Amino acid sequence: MTTAGESHGPAHVAIIDGVPPGIPLTVDDLMVDLDRRRPGQSKIVSQRNEPDVPEILAGVFEGHTTGTSLAILVHNRDQRSRDYSNIKDLYRPGHADYTYDAKYGFRDYRGGGRSSARETTVRVAAGVVAKKLLARAFGGHVLGYVVQVGDVRADIADPAAVTFDQVERLADGEANVVRCPDHEAAARMVELIEAMRSDQDSIGGIAEIVATGVPAGLGEPVFDKIKADLAKGLFSLPAVLGVEYGSGFGCATMRGSEHNDVFVAAESNSRQRPIRTDVARLAAESNRHGGMLGGITSGMPLVLRAAVKPTSSLPQTQRTVDRSGAAAEIQTKGRHDPCLLPRFIPMAEAMVAIVLADHWLRAKGQCLDSPALP
Amino acid sequence: MTTAGESHGPAHVAIIDGVPPGIPLTVDDLMVDLDRRRPGQSKIVSQRNEPDVPEILAGVFEGHTTGTSLAILVHNRDQRSRDYSNIKDLYRPGHADYTYDAKYGFRDYRGGGRSSARETTVRVAAGVVAKKLLARAFGGHVLGYVVQVGDVRADIADPAAVTFDQVERLADGEANVVRCPDHEAAARMVELIEAMRSDQDSIGGIAEIVATGVPAGLGEPVFDKIKADLAKGLFSLPAVLGVEYGSGFGCATMRGSEHNDVFVAAESNSRQRPIRTDVARLAAESNRHGGMLGGITSGMPLVLRAAVKPTSSLPQTQRTVDRSGAAAEIQTKGRHDPCLLPRFIPMAEAMVAIVLADHWLRAKGQCLDSPALP
Amino acid sequence: MTTAGESHGPAHVAIIDGVPPGIPLTVDDLMVDLDRRRPGQSKIVSQRNEPDVPEILAGVFEGHTTGTSLAILVHNRDQRSRDYSNIKDLYRPGHADYTYDAKYGFRDYRGGGRSSARETTVRVAAGVVAKKLLARAFGGHVLGYVVQVGDVRADIADPAAVTFDQVERLADGEANVVRCPDHEAAARMVELIEAMRSDQDSIGGIAEIVATGVPAGLGEPVFDKIKADLAKGLFSLPAVLGVEYGSGFGCATMRGSEHNDVFVAAESNSRQRPIRTDVARLAAESNRHGGMLGGITSGMPLVLRAAVKPTSSLPQTQRTVDRSGAAAEIQTKGRHDPCLLPRFIPMAEAMVAIVLADHWLRAKGQCLDSPALP
Amino acid sequence: MTTAGESHGPAHVAIIDGVPPGIPLTVDDLMVDLDRRRPGQSKIVSQRNEPDVPEILAGVFEGHTTGTSLAILVHNRDQRSRDYSNIKDLYRPGHADYTYDAKYGFRDYRGGGRSSARETTVRVAAGVVAKKLLARAFGGHVLGYVVQVGDVRADIADPAAVTFDQVERLADGEANVVRCPDHEAAARMVELIEAMRSDQDSIGGIAEIVATGVPAGLGEPVFDKIKADLAKGLFSLPAVLGVEYGSGFGCATMRGSEHNDVFVAAESNSRQRPIRTDVARLAAESNRHGGMLGGITSGMPLVLRAAVKPTSSLPQTQRTVDRSGAAAEIQTKGRHDPCLLPRFIPMAEAMVAIVLADHWLRAKGQCLDSPALP
Repeated sequence: MTTAGESHGPAHVAIIDGVPPGIPLTVDDLMVDLDRRRPGQSKIVSQRNEPDVPEILAGVFEGHTTGTSLAILVHNRDQRSRDYSNIKDLYRPGHADYTYDAKYGFRDYRGGGRSSARETTVRVAAGVVAKKLLARAFGGHVLGYVVQVGDVRADIADPAAVTFDQVERLADGEANVVRCPDHEAAARMVELIEAMRSDQDSIGGIAEIVATGVPAGLGEPVFDKIKADLAKGLFSLPAVLGVEYGSGFGCATMRGSEHNDVFVAAESNSRQRPIRTDVARLAAESNRHGGMLGGITSGMPLVLRAAVKPTSSLPQTQRTVDRSGAAAEIQTKGRHDPCLLPRFIPMAEAMVAIVLADHWLRAKGQCLDSPALP
Repeated sequence: MTTAGESHGPAHVAIIDGVPPGIPLTVDDLMVDLDRRRPGQSKIVSQRNEPDVPEILAGVFEGHTTGTSLAILVHNRDQRSRDYSNIKDLYRPGHADYTYDAKYGFRDYRGGGRSSARETTVRVAAGVVAKKLLARAFGGHVLGYVVQVGDVRADIADPAAVTFDQVERLADGEANVVRCPDHEAAARMVELIEAMRSDQDSIGGIAEIVATGVPAGLGEPVFDKIKADLAKGLFSLPAVLGVEYGSGFGCATMRGSEHNDVFVAAESNSRQRPIRTDVARLAAESNRHGGMLGGITSGMPLVLRAAVKPTSSLPQTQRTVDRSGAAAEIQTKGRHDPCLLPRFIPMAEAMVAIVLADHWLRAKGQCLDSPALP
Repeated sequence: MTTAGESHGPAHVAIIDGVPPGIPLTVDDLMVDLDRRRPGQSKIVSQRNEPDVPEILAGVFEGHTTGTSLAILVHNRDQRSRDYSNIKDLYRPGHADYTYDAKYGFRDYRGGGRSSARETTVRVAAGVVAKKLLARAFGGHVLGYVVQVGDVRADIADPAAVTFDQVERLADGEANVVRCPDHEAAARMVELIEAMRSDQDSIGGIAEIVATGVPAGLGEPVFDKIKADLAKGLFSLPAVLGVEYGSGFGCATMRGSEHNDVFVAAESNSRQRPIRTDVARLAAESNRHGGMLGGITSGMPLVLRAAVKPTSSLPQTQRTVDRSGAAAEIQTKGRHDPCLLPRFIPMAEAMVAIVLADHWLRAKGQCLDSPALP
Repeated sequence: MTTAGESHGPAHVAIIDGVPPGIPLTVDDLMVDLDRRRPGQSKIVSQRNEPDVPEILAGVFEGHTTGTSLAILVHNRDQRSRDYSNIKDLYRPGHADYTYDAKYGFRDYRGGGRSSARETTVRVAAGVVAKKLLARAFGGHVLGYVVQVGDVRADIADPAAVTFDQVERLADGEANVVRCPDHEAAARMVELIEAMRSDQDSIGGIAEIVATGVPAGLGEPVFDKIKADLAKGLFSLPAVLGVEYGSGFGCATMRGSEHNDVFVAAESNSRQRPIRTDVARLAAESNRHGGMLGGITSGMPLVLRAAVKPTSSLPQTQRTVDRSGAAAEIQTKGRHDPCLLPRFIPMAEAMVAIVLADHWLRAKGQCLDSPALP
């Protein structure tokens, strides 16, 4: 996959190569996750209004992927023709303004240009294609949710048991706007985020992403370990400052004897199974290894977490410098998210799904049907 | 770079492409970091004895890199011809035995085969080449050290001020075997590691890696963000379960107003400067952004941390299963590290240096001298 | 660069990564070569009428490339809503219909779908960007022309002396519709092509592409030899059945003593010079090596030739089979080119320019300023 | 695959990634083609004596490929410690001496260093692995032979019917040292090559490479057309100045009505079949398309030809210049091949086999079992 597009340019576009032929795909399929990503979806996110309706430019014929390059375009509709003269020579704290200038000498300063998180629209669309592939290939499923906002932590007994419904809906059927499946914690998170907005401030948090149904045997032994590619995928998203899986940073205080997960035989109808039919089905009694050992999936659910910083754009006045290095003040007037987490979930799911789809295709190419070799 | 080699095969080898011509390089240069990585270097690491003397097979002529493919080989000398019949059909907990079988159908079971951390010897050698490149290109320097072992945490006032000497030597000139620059903490870490060994157990920890002198402007805007490539590099190392930079997971509880770092003008002779001469030199009053914004270096020191799990190989008896899925017991008899951290440091430095060198070459190719375009 | 798009889909799109920042670029720049490629440009090419006006979706700000991903889109306007029922189950001879089905199981059969040469519109647009880069980087210039149509061969004394004007204009100022700089041969070629059209037939030919001003030192020593990448670029174009450079297939009958070109010192102001300033400027007395030795440019003009087959689509009835393998007859009714060569020229120039631009950026990254290393 | 090594360095080494697990592989397997490539094999090739015994460093366990990185090393044994002072400052005509200096500033001048064709030893070894893969995957077979040396042309009725035995043996059982399956022509070729040697000269020629049993459906639609990757593979070999397939440059004088090959149904037990079982088996009545249409294999035999220049190294005195650009004379004293073609055959077969193996793995990953998707 590759993408192009700037926040205030005419459109964002993704070209996705390697999609297998014959997968049913419509614009409606793409809308499911685009609606979860779009601004204006709830009271606790940015109030910009972008419908984000994608156009499939290429790679689908009579409702199915053709196997050739897939192109998805999303027009940028709500580009308010604002006056940017007040920020074009200022470097916004926490943003890429200075680093782009340092690299390229100048930048498209309108709404962050290429560095805008709006670029993730087309990645989320591509993620839908990857999710469909995983479902068809091995019944795989990727689901993300919020586990922490500021000091509010969710209590999740079993990451692999969380359902899409718990993430998207509250008990009363109302939208779970913060996407935390611990609904008691969710209520406190919403409160905290609203407090941030009235303080003209923002707050960070942590997302957890779980992939279930993934067979053992995906990933490469050295450089393209699946943990390495998943981490790269998540760190390629804006505002991510940390990624961990399984016991994560908690492993630092553990002994080997308590950290090692014990293998046991898996039921013959369990979801734990290897990509090769000539190898035993195993499970583990616990999952501190987060579903990956030696860079290769173990058959247990993949469990990852990503730390997301508080939104850098703030309505309150901040100190900074201008292009010449002279001290200045800046207020970012846009309609920003006081907390990035609720809209981050579909982005993180997309990257995890895309990486898993890539490794599935690699495994198919090199290894999958090797037992069939004479 | 690509590598090949198994723990008990004849040798490990790395081929490194893209090295600029004219860099002085000798086997002695490579030994510096290979000696920091090798087993048997101190009482708290594995007592295997591998001298790890590399051979430069190609790419160096009359003591200088030629610009063509560089090949470095390290023979595997201390392959005790042990009897592996007791483990060849067992899946060691925490290891890649089962996942390799799941992927490939069988595996080289001698000492972990391809999944052995011995593979990192040639990466550490390649890291020396990258470090030389960074030093020559922009005076860059990569240094890692241990900041946590179990519950023992080091107190590091300024990561960018830590010196190689503090990491490698104690005040009395003795070797700092645990590579923690807080020497009081270092003593307690050594104690803890020795306790682990006598308990037939192991312990996890956290490493911090700092890159100083790196100019602003390295990294790509979307998929190949420098944070993403650095994370992939660190996660490609064995036993890493988490990576963070700057404020890392700590950002979750912070507000935007306290998290944003404030830009200020930098001194004209400071190490903070962009790759382009036509852009202002800036610094930041603090470094919660860990030297990277929008996927591109900011000129501030890069500060990363990696969580390393406790060694999975334990001399004590552990429960597991065999190839058929039947319950079994296993004891790993080898001479293993009770804590991976001391030897992890040069591996982590190598991966950080290699990623930075790659991005420097990319920046040179695309951007560096653009001001010179008419 | 990557592209997407089908003949009768909404648009073709290219995403081009790695373009240096600061290059002036407008839609008008792109039109120059798109007009040379488009159907309907003269009486001897396809009479379809596609204006082929591109849209720059991303990567240009205030008239200059930003250094981030460049996206160019060309809408497909003249998609006659024809009835394809007569060909959708037939395999057209010489086309990719059967091979796509063999690979993907089905295909977009409208106008060739993904296999249509219409895909080259966006490559030609990308080629304009590459040409601008070559001109700015080292005064490089890429020019193609037709040297053979059927049995009519042009007489070109010095490939490096052919001008754009000779290729595009006849002595009387009229358009040189066949793009052969030997105007006497050009007249006979036009006659032959018109005869083919009235015979409901088509004819093959040979194009020559020359790159001048290219410094010595571009290309890689082994797999990415510049001759290999140029050949791959030309063979990636539809209908190309052969590529040669310098003496080409003629080398088979030559002795080493007559084939070797003799090096001589070059004038200090000549266009022959290496990328490094510390190496002598050389020229060769002859150019049987076509400007490349050991996979690396020598400083002499690059001279390549590509053989282009006669158009496979013919208005006359041809034998073939249908999807079930049953014998059938087919007539291809579209408005096809009786000879592909005139419109092939800008495509071939584009691929040569793109490959050279890539290698220039690689050389800059790895080698160019190495003398500046301490 | 990637390689490293210089002519007079300690060894050449190749690392090959992506080899499926479970393929039997021994050093003896590799020797078959290495013996066809090595110098000293007959009176008409270089009389250097290099046994070229490879060592498998990694990636094979208990006689089978493991699926992890395969490393093959060939020591350089016959490095006569000659005095190179007479040529180190001279640029040999037809060689890469000047272009390497132009790129890198200096070079390993001993025996051509990195530009030596000795690098192809490890490619030929890798080709053996690819050939085994093709044979196991679909009964594929790659065979090359000489069709022209100077003005002597072989008469080959059906490229797909040529046997390994015809290429390697004469009717009387003697070695067919020139590897031309038209034995009458072979005798005249040998005569011509011997005349070249006594004239202290060399001669060019043409090789033909045929791949049989290749199913329809390999190759990518746009940039990675199989013809493009095969051409890149062949052009990545030293001394290749032209590549064509099917009718090749001969297509220039043909009409569409005579060039198009007519599809017919194939026998159900024929070697012509697509990679998908749900698509009809077709053949073509003729093979001017050389087994590739639209960049994808058609199921017909692949037929390619490569033009190889006369050896540049000549024992006779040639004019040239030195590093300063001053006129000089040079005699290349080594034991060179008066004609490269006989030893070129296994190199060309290797590159064709490697490219086909790569595309087979790609097709398996993306497309092959798609009918099995629900």
